[in-house]
Amino acid sequence: MEIELGRGKRGRRAYTFDDVAIVPTRRTRNPADVSTSWTIDAFTFETPILGAPMDSVVSPQTAIELGRMGVLGVLDLEGLWTRYEDPEPLLAEIASLPAESATQRMQALYAEPIKPGLISQRIAEIRAAGVVAAGALSPQRTAEHYETVVNAGVDLFVIRGTTVSAEHVSSSEDALNLKQFIYDLDVPVIVGGVGTHKAALHLMRTGAAGVLVGFGGGAASTTRSALGIHTPMATAVADVSAARRDYMDESGGRYVHVIADGGVGTSGDIVKAIAMGADAVMLGVSLARATDAPGGGFHWGQEAHHATLPRGRRVAVDQSSTLEEVLFGPATTADGTTNLMGALRKSMATTGYSDLKEFQRVDVVVSPYE
Amino acid sequence: MEIELGRGKRGRRAYTFDDVAIVPTRRTRNPADVSTSWTIDAFTFETPILGAPMDSVVSPQTAIELGRMGVLGVLDLEGLWTRYEDPEPLLAEIASLPAESATQRMQALYAEPIKPGLISQRIAEIRAAGVVAAGALSPQRTAEHYETVVNAGVDLFVIRGTTVSAEHVSSSEDALNLKQFIYDLDVPVIVGGVGTHKAALHLMRTGAAGVLVGFGGGAASTTRSALGIHTPMATAVADVSAARRDYMDESGGRYVHVIADGGVGTSGDIVKAIAMGADAVMLGVSLARATDAPGGGFHWGQEAHHATLPRGRRVAVDQSSTLEEVLFGPATTADGTTNLMGALRKSMATTGYSDLKEFQRVDVVVSPYE
Amino acid sequence: MEIELGRGKRGRRAYTFDDVAIVPTRRTRNPADVSTSWTIDAFTFETPILGAPMDSVVSPQTAIELGRMGVLGVLDLEGLWTRYEDPEPLLAEIASLPAESATQRMQALYAEPIKPGLISQRIAEIRAAGVVAAGALSPQRTAEHYETVVNAGVDLFVIRGTTVSAEHVSSSEDALNLKQFIYDLDVPVIVGGVGTHKAALHLMRTGAAGVLVGFGGGAASTTRSALGIHTPMATAVADVSAARRDYMDESGGRYVHVIADGGVGTSGDIVKAIAMGADAVMLGVSLARATDAPGGGFHWGQEAHHATLPRGRRVAVDQSSTLEEVLFGPATTADGTTNLMGALRKSMATTGYSDLKEFQRVDVVVSPYE
Amino acid sequence: MEIELGRGKRGRRAYTFDDVAIVPTRRTRNPADVSTSWTIDAFTFETPILGAPMDSVVSPQTAIELGRMGVLGVLDLEGLWTRYEDPEPLLAEIASLPAESATQRMQALYAEPIKPGLISQRIAEIRAAGVVAAGALSPQRTAEHYETVVNAGVDLFVIRGTTVSAEHVSSSEDALNLKQFIYDLDVPVIVGGVGTHKAALHLMRTGAAGVLVGFGGGAASTTRSALGIHTPMATAVADVSAARRDYMDESGGRYVHVIADGGVGTSGDIVKAIAMGADAVMLGVSLARATDAPGGGFHWGQEAHHATLPRGRRVAVDQSSTLEEVLFGPATTADGTTNLMGALRKSMATTGYSDLKEFQRVDVVVSPYE
Repeated sequence: MEIELGRGKRGRRAYTFDDVAIVPTRRTRNPADVSTSWTIDAFTFETPILGAPMDSVVSPQTAIELGRMGVLGVLDLEGLWTRYEDPEPLLAEIASLPAESATQRMQALYAEPIKPGLISQRIAEIRAAGVVAAGALSPQRTAEHYETVVNAGVDLFVIRGTTVSAEHVSSSEDALNLKQFIYDLDVPVIVGGVGTHKAALHLMRTGAAGVLVGFGGGAASTTRSALGIHTPMATAVADVSAARRDYMDESGGRYVHVIADGGVGTSGDIVKAIAMGADAVMLGVSLARATDAPGGGFHWGQEAHHATLPRGRRVAVDQSSTLEEVLFGPATTADGTTNLMGALRKSMATTGYSDLKEFQRVDVVVSPYE
Repeated sequence: MEIELGRGKRGRRAYTFDDVAIVPTRRTRNPADVSTSWTIDAFTFETPILGAPMDSVVSPQTAIELGRMGVLGVLDLEGLWTRYEDPEPLLAEIASLPAESATQRMQALYAEPIKPGLISQRIAEIRAAGVVAAGALSPQRTAEHYETVVNAGVDLFVIRGTTVSAEHVSSSEDALNLKQFIYDLDVPVIVGGVGTHKAALHLMRTGAAGVLVGFGGGAASTTRSALGIHTPMATAVADVSAARRDYMDESGGRYVHVIADGGVGTSGDIVKAIAMGADAVMLGVSLARATDAPGGGFHWGQEAHHATLPRGRRVAVDQSSTLEEVLFGPATTADGTTNLMGALRKSMATTGYSDLKEFQRVDVVVSPYE
Repeated sequence: MEIELGRGKRGRRAYTFDDVAIVPTRRTRNPADVSTSWTIDAFTFETPILGAPMDSVVSPQTAIELGRMGVLGVLDLEGLWTRYEDPEPLLAEIASLPAESATQRMQALYAEPIKPGLISQRIAEIRAAGVVAAGALSPQRTAEHYETVVNAGVDLFVIRGTTVSAEHVSSSEDALNLKQFIYDLDVPVIVGGVGTHKAALHLMRTGAAGVLVGFGGGAASTTRSALGIHTPMATAVADVSAARRDYMDESGGRYVHVIADGGVGTSGDIVKAIAMGADAVMLGVSLARATDAPGGGFHWGQEAHHATLPRGRRVAVDQSSTLEEVLFGPATTADGTTNLMGALRKSMATTGYSDLKEFQRVDVVVSPYE
Repeated sequence: MEIELGRGKRGRRAYTFDDVAIVPTRRTRNPADVSTSWTIDAFTFETPILGAPMDSVVSPQTAIELGRMGVLGVLDLEGLWTRYEDPEPLLAEIASLPAESATQRMQALYAEPIKPGLISQRIAEIRAAGVVAAGALSPQRTAEHYETVVNAGVDLFVIRGTTVSAEHVSSSEDALNLKQFIYDLDVPVIVGGVGTHKAALHLMRTGAAGVLVGFGGGAASTTRSALGIHTPMATAVADVSAARRDYMDESGGRYVHVIADGGVGTSGDIVKAIAMGADAVMLGVSLARATDAPGGGFHWGQEAHHATLPRGRRVAVDQSSTLEEVLFGPATTADGTTNLMGALRKSMATTGYSDLKEFQRVDVVVSPYE
């Protein structure tokens, strides 16, 4: 896979989900016999889907709705819900901003300080509904807020940045010692993004229960043109899955869950992520498309309102189905944006597999989308 | 051809018809000396073309017209013609639906139960005209309706699903035992779709007279974005043709016909399908473009009205030539959509071949379409 | 270069001009020191350019103008000029036809029989002006009209079809024996198109003075979608140039000229054709863009009005420069469509070469156009 | 990397910046700890950026502004500023020309002779402001004007053509002997463009302090379609960087700076240029986008007004940020066109590097932009 790019500089060929497809084999199966459940730590979910910690995807209310449908909705603990008592009007305002001023207004809205009291309150709201409560902080703010989060009784703790490394070097700040931090915590931690075998292996050694594969990818991000950084997802998921196997060996059996986070826009992409080795996928735009998603027809990530270096955009999304229709159908369109779980089930049945773990071995071909 | 996609995950590079082209060699031939006939079981046809079992392509009337022109039209025995006494007004309604409601209305129309009496009646209508009668069922409904079909005197029986395997596993239903079924039947069976060498070999061992290569491909399908499944046709046809040769060896000489079904939109694609090893091609959209095709300017497959997981679309098609002009010209346009047989004949003559079996050996280059 | 497309079917990767580019090396040269002349048989031209035998490119009048500028204009002896006494009004009519009826009307216009007397008259007109007279027939009509052409005093005889082979097989007609034909003729013959090493070698053995590389390619052709045939030009020119070298060896020194015919749309393409080994290029659309080209703002080939299988289109072309500006500048645009010879000269100087034969050795990189 | 393009003709696969991306590894770093400074000869700059010698990018006034921000602005000494006493109205006129006549009017404006007195005056203006003064001549005019330039007290002398070779052959003119010229000069010289290892090595041996990698590339150039010449930048920068290392070895330690010049349109491209081995980048369109750039919303190179062979275009550029915002932010858009240095700093930090020299070793993947 190493290619000579020029004298003295080599690089690997890496593949996106669009570059690959899965292929049926000689056996088919009844979709009703297929299981799509996955288990992380003490928690079992009927669908291998997480709602991404983005204000356009997960509010406390959607976290509860998703939880009742077997999906783990992760609340962004640095978003509008922990900065404002009532963010509903602000979400509506963002959805009504003209394109040319959206970045600037969002930079202003997200300049409001985070309130620890609101962190506690949002987690409590989700817990009160009886679903698994999960919240996300960035690595930069984990040290500052994690005690609030844990004391509020979060069930799963997510540390999510564009890149999270096991070793962060800084001369001016006390860098978070991930290993010590996770060791001291009673709550299971999911951490990422990460895109390579070596970096994933180092993250797994910190004791994380799961790692997020990706680098601020997906529909709302312009990371590649701004930073020159790109994590082709098919290759990245396969590499990190290989790290999971290698770490299982070196740790004497600890299984760290691999969650594809970025570039998953259709049910076909969910299928391919698992085919490349993912245990679950974190969805952003796919859920933001629901009529009852908090983004009100728009989708954006934290990069979109970075104070000095915005690297994403607020993107408009079509909204025509409810969250339940997006996840479980019935689909009324044919483009892989509704009945995501029905499509996954059908794809597994058509290729003859009965559970997600087996399905990670399905055959793949390389055939770039025209 | 195996590529490392990431650590521990490899995939084959697979090619579509658009990736390849045929090349002339040192000999040319007079088109009048070229034969395009093919024979399956007791039936010989002057053209290596089958009309796909889709309501927009084959009605009882077009099956008869096609038969008289040397084409095998296959009627969909689960389409409107076996659900309604008079489907003409419904075909007209589908052609007039606005895009946003087409999927939903089609789902409703196709919810009407299939009437065994209509199956018998439609086959009888075709037989009465003196042409070869062929009808198709899905694997799911073959057990329920096959006796009706056989008793009605069908000449060729087609079992066509998105993927058909020789081994279907189900805990809740009695799966069709294809081998036993075909053995018991007096009528030759064509079965598919299939996309790999191994799956094709297993299907050939069931006793089928022909296999369909493809996976719900073609203009009307969004299988790849919904299911993540894709069967690049040039590679698939070559693989299944190799299975034909291997099966001929292991069976002591039984020749199973390979029929490309999907991704064949122009006369150039017909040429390439045969160049990759196909004995014949099944056409959908290419025939739906005729002014006398039943779709009335639209084309759709069974995936388009699946009750919970529609994966195709009703697509509008340009209609400017009759079925006869589409097949035999004179062409009045220059884009490979009319005079399909004239183009095949010209292509065979230009490269110096005199029959289809020889033409399967023509040289091919890889040069993706810009 | 052989790729496995599927089990049992392999194909070569072949390259178009768009896939490649030339690279400067360590030496540069003064453009004034560069020679672009080429010699075929007894005729030397200051530019390695031929005007294609197409009614939109070469009329008797443009053949004369081109000849005075050092370009060999080849008249189509089966075009409007040998079918009609005065084709000017018909050329104007073609230029005014609406797109939807152009193919049909052109089929009708070209159904008019060829008049031998007009063949003689047109060649005489060109000769009378004192420039080299060249005319083209298709292989199908060469036997019928060649005596008229030779008797009219043509200097160079061109036999041009979509594919011309040294061995044409026909049961119903007397195929032209190219070798005998060329041997008997006193006039040097250029013949093509051809696209492979082996076919070119066979053509060279017929005694041709030059071969045309291509297969009805270029802007006006839809050969690939209609016939599935494609001749990626960079690879084809290199292959035929290798045949030139091999034939020179086996013939004891006879040099057959290689002329790229198709896919040459810009001055950059001319540069690449020669870089891949061509001695000269035949231009269609590049010359049809001139304000004084006969096409009146349109361009079409013989495939566009084939009676039963049209495979080209009449395409609209921008016209803003005269033939002289197109060829020698000054360029007033920057897209490679004007000052073709200035660009070739500059490109040769920038890479340090002084004549065309040397320039065939320039370094090439593979880097597909985005 | 050598590919057989056809019999007897091989070429290397070469890569553009769009073909590659960098990948994070296991370490991250605080952006505040990252150094982006570079030093050439006696001059140290805080940013590895040069303003290209183009009238739309660098005027005497912008050279001064850029210098104060740590950027080396290079004045085109053959542009409007050395042809006219007051070019401001002419710049405004160019920005107001309609597209169809822009090339012709620019040809006329640039036909005005260069005034040596104005060369001296412009350099003096820049020096007077206390910033490093750099000016560029083409190789063709270096002999004529260099004494004026040196006497005016230029700090860095740039010789920039589409291709500059160490060996220029001419029968009619005295070619510049680069080696002698540079040896005799007291001022450090930057020379280019160059695109290959061998040509770069020859240029380095002339004694140049830096070489420009590129060939008139970038947004404003149509070199590829006009000349057939293309220098895929990722490969070219890697090759020339390898020449830098080889020359360092053969010269006993002389370090020649490698400056990517062309194809650098976004901050992501700057990142990739350095990742492939560049010490600095020369920016054209990226700076022309500033509201205070001299082009007034347009960008053009010298090829755009070549008297007989224009090969570039005057292109319209969006202008919404000041030069300072373009370079250092805050960014208000998300597409890699603003806060270039912030993006570079973030990219270096995310991948764990602390200075530019180290960052040249960052991992790269091949994954073409869709």
